[in-house]
Amino acid sequence: MKTTAHVTLVGAGPGDPDLITLKGLKAIQSADVILYDALVNEELLEQAKKSCTKIYVGKRAEALSTSQDQINKLLVDYALTHGHVVRLKGGDPFVFGRGGEELDFVRQYGISTSSIPGISSSTGLTGLQQIPLTYRGISESFWVITGSTSSGELSSDLQKAVQTNATVVVLMGYAKLSQIVSLYKENGKEDLPIAVIQNGSLPNERIALGTVASILEEVEKKRLSMPAIIVLGEVVKKHQHFNLLKDEIKSFSI
Amino acid sequence: MKTTAHVTLVGAGPGDPDLITLKGLKAIQSADVILYDALVNEELLEQAKKSCTKIYVGKRAEALSTSQDQINKLLVDYALTHGHVVRLKGGDPFVFGRGGEELDFVRQYGISTSSIPGISSSTGLTGLQQIPLTYRGISESFWVITGSTSSGELSSDLQKAVQTNATVVVLMGYAKLSQIVSLYKENGKEDLPIAVIQNGSLPNERIALGTVASILEEVEKKRLSMPAIIVLGEVVKKHQHFNLLKDEIKSFSI
Repeated sequence: MKTTAHVTLVGAGPGDPDLITLKGLKAIQSADVILYDALVNEELLEQAKKSCTKIYVGKRAEALSTSQDQINKLLVDYALTHGHVVRLKGGDPFVFGRGGEELDFVRQYGISTSSIPGISSSTGLTGLQQIPLTYRGISESFWVITGSTSSGELSSDLQKAVQTNATVVVLMGYAKLSQIVSLYKENGKEDLPIAVIQNGSLPNERIALGTVASILEEVEKKRLSMPAIIVLGEVVKKHQHFNLLKDEIKSFSI
Repeated sequence: MKTTAHVTLVGAGPGDPDLITLKGLKAIQSADVILYDALVNEELLEQAKKSCTKIYVGKRAEALSTSQDQINKLLVDYALTHGHVVRLKGGDPFVFGRGGEELDFVRQYGISTSSIPGISSSTGLTGLQQIPLTYRGISESFWVITGSTSSGELSSDLQKAVQTNATVVVLMGYAKLSQIVSLYKENGKEDLPIAVIQNGSLPNERIALGTVASILEEVEKKRLSMPAIIVLGEVVKKHQHFNLLKDEIKSFSI
């Protein structure tokens, strides 16, 4: 039987396997080959056909991992030889996922493509913590920014975001948390609420809540580490435990 | 049997019933009562228990519809009398969904709450159209803004967004498309690519692609209307048909 080459980008969501969409699950079930990332929950792979080839192309430990060029070539090779390739990515494939680059490469070979969105950590992990990204009278927009630019510098977008009332979500920015805190302090935003969420949606999820002034101490106290997202904005006050924190701060200052 | 009052906010996704998460579906299946919006696909309700009470609280036709105050009260009443209430909202409950307000109200009565994220139109409908919100070297952030502020004016965040390189997604802004176009023109962005996506993820989905200079003509030509999202940014050029459009424009100008 002749195979029809096709590549489907699928967003696996932020970690909890139940946060994939039904459409994403159906794509996994119909895949001939799945290329998956480090942040994808491997339980999802159990949904694939028995004959499906599953290939890990995670990019976390750079030395041992697959380069973007290799991933691009694998997508093309497997689509041409095996048929339906699902490229399974953590979160949403187009939110800092380099999904666009992969599609550009694949299409050069005349291979058809499609995409199934996933729950992005930016909206999903805040949602699970019941932090509303927007709230009437508090925030009428949210801005999602990468903490990890190719230059290694803080994104210049963040320099602009600090001057707005938008809720700001920084992905892959935990290593730059103290730089981000400095930037917000320089802009007179010591009192702005922040949340840092580590391993969001997984059993080992942890959160630190605080203000620009206190968050570094809070993440230390809670021993947070990567991977984590950072949420900055007045809406963070809407977290159920934020007021407890305020009471705690008050009791300290008495 | 005593019921335990609980309210779960659930994001139903942008329209296609297969774009709900497994976790969202499980919540629907366990609900004693479901309060749902106009933008929720009613096929999802078929997944509920037979004994589940389903109540439409859509807010589209204002005169005939349920006010926010009434919705808040219904959530409390049903949770206290029936147990598990699922509040099912189109897209994601915290992206302009007033989910935060509903939770605040419900918690005043000591009712516990949780939230299950949904695919927001902002990331999901762009994703289905294979428009990458971020792309290395083109855009390292995206900014999601409401087109429908309580004052009726364009959001002041949009006035700031036009001055950045962030990909901008405007939700509920179709009625203000010409105002948005004017704003971008005033800021010298005539050539910036735009996409307008109507009924995204549904069988009657339609898209218009163009630039700030041409989009009003394009939506007219395609007879687009509400509900639609607006995407502004260089990444829109990555849509598979954007170059076709450019060729068409070229052939016109010969």
